[in-house]
Amino acid sequence: MATQLPKHIGVILFPGFQLLDLCGPLDVLNLLAIHRTLNLTILANTLDPVSTKHTGHEGKHSNFSEAIVPTHTFTTAPDDIEVLILPGGFGSRKEENIEGVVEFVKVYYPKVKYILTVCTGSAILAKTGVLDGRKATSNKKAFSWVREQNTAVHWVPKARWVVDGNIWTSSGISAGIDLIYAWIAEVWGEELASLLADSSEYERSTDASNDRFAERWGAV
Amino acid sequence: MATQLPKHIGVILFPGFQLLDLCGPLDVLNLLAIHRTLNLTILANTLDPVSTKHTGHEGKHSNFSEAIVPTHTFTTAPDDIEVLILPGGFGSRKEENIEGVVEFVKVYYPKVKYILTVCTGSAILAKTGVLDGRKATSNKKAFSWVREQNTAVHWVPKARWVVDGNIWTSSGISAGIDLIYAWIAEVWGEELASLLADSSEYERSTDASNDRFAERWGAV
Repeated sequence: MATQLPKHIGVILFPGFQLLDLCGPLDVLNLLAIHRTLNLTILANTLDPVSTKHTGHEGKHSNFSEAIVPTHTFTTAPDDIEVLILPGGFGSRKEENIEGVVEFVKVYYPKVKYILTVCTGSAILAKTGVLDGRKATSNKKAFSWVREQNTAVHWVPKARWVVDGNIWTSSGISAGIDLIYAWIAEVWGEELASLLADSSEYERSTDASNDRFAERWGAV
Repeated sequence: MATQLPKHIGVILFPGFQLLDLCGPLDVLNLLAIHRTLNLTILANTLDPVSTKHTGHEGKHSNFSEAIVPTHTFTTAPDDIEVLILPGGFGSRKEENIEGVVEFVKVYYPKVKYILTVCTGSAILAKTGVLDGRKATSNKKAFSWVREQNTAVHWVPKARWVVDGNIWTSSGISAGIDLIYAWIAEVWGEELASLLADSSEYERSTDASNDRFAERWGAV
């Protein structure tokens, strides 16, 4: 267990983020916050609600999206956030959606104890340079695109999640839930992680190397 | 597969809803909406963002919650919603949070093809009377409280999810994800359900009767 437990979590929104990349980990943290004191900051470019709507499949689901309300902008972010969570999503493929995220994380990263990414959130993180020379994983369906974003990263194709120092990256969408439980087990202990998973009636994948989706989507 | 495929999904928000109860199923529907034409209506008492914040553990996580933006109120709901999804959450235990939901569902239910509940969403549905004489399940940690809400329901303690006619009820929080995949398999076919689960890198529980959490939380 960590000796100094984090108390302030920050999550990052951008247009076209993947809902479960964010809400999978957040729901577990909502449960953790019943047992431990935790604060949450929800960051975005502006204070306007940020939608999951993306334009990659325009016309097909123009009326099917959801929006979450930020609490702070990148410029008004409190300076004591200890953990940053970065989701992925179709929106990560458009530079205009993630410019502010990349700039914010690049500047803020030295202050945090941990950074966690889900899905193509690691592709965004790769653009900041902080993954250079580090091991990381990402969404398996998008893996060839992810590799192209930064070849200085040691991309690990077959992994449910990867830990390198204080950077925890997970595979696609649902893998973020296993990532957050593994991280909580590391920081707060396995007993509490297990209690939260049972409370959520969730069957964890606890083996970071067990990843059938790498073959399924041709990442290996 | 259903002959007339649903095109309009409605989800219901109330103060203190459980984030994953809603966003687990919604994220899968976001993926489905890439492949099939679907519209989404997000309903609540007013158009103000609805927070997951609940008062059951006041002071412990006063700054840890998220808010989602409704698209319609219960009084401005479009009249062609075919599927209603009802999450649960700590907030379901306070009558003032769910009065509007109960009244809306009671009146709207005859119009829908399906209603799906997650977690203690079935306790809210039980208050409308539409579960009377039907089989249903719910969150296993909250099961004794759920039973008390309406004894005319045939509560099934050991089940990941239960189908009775057009009403699909699931067990706690994460079970809603297995519920939505099972429902999509029934309506759109197993092939598409399986493709979506692989895209989300999710390992489904496909056995509705496999539920170790019933024993874990003393529901049986």
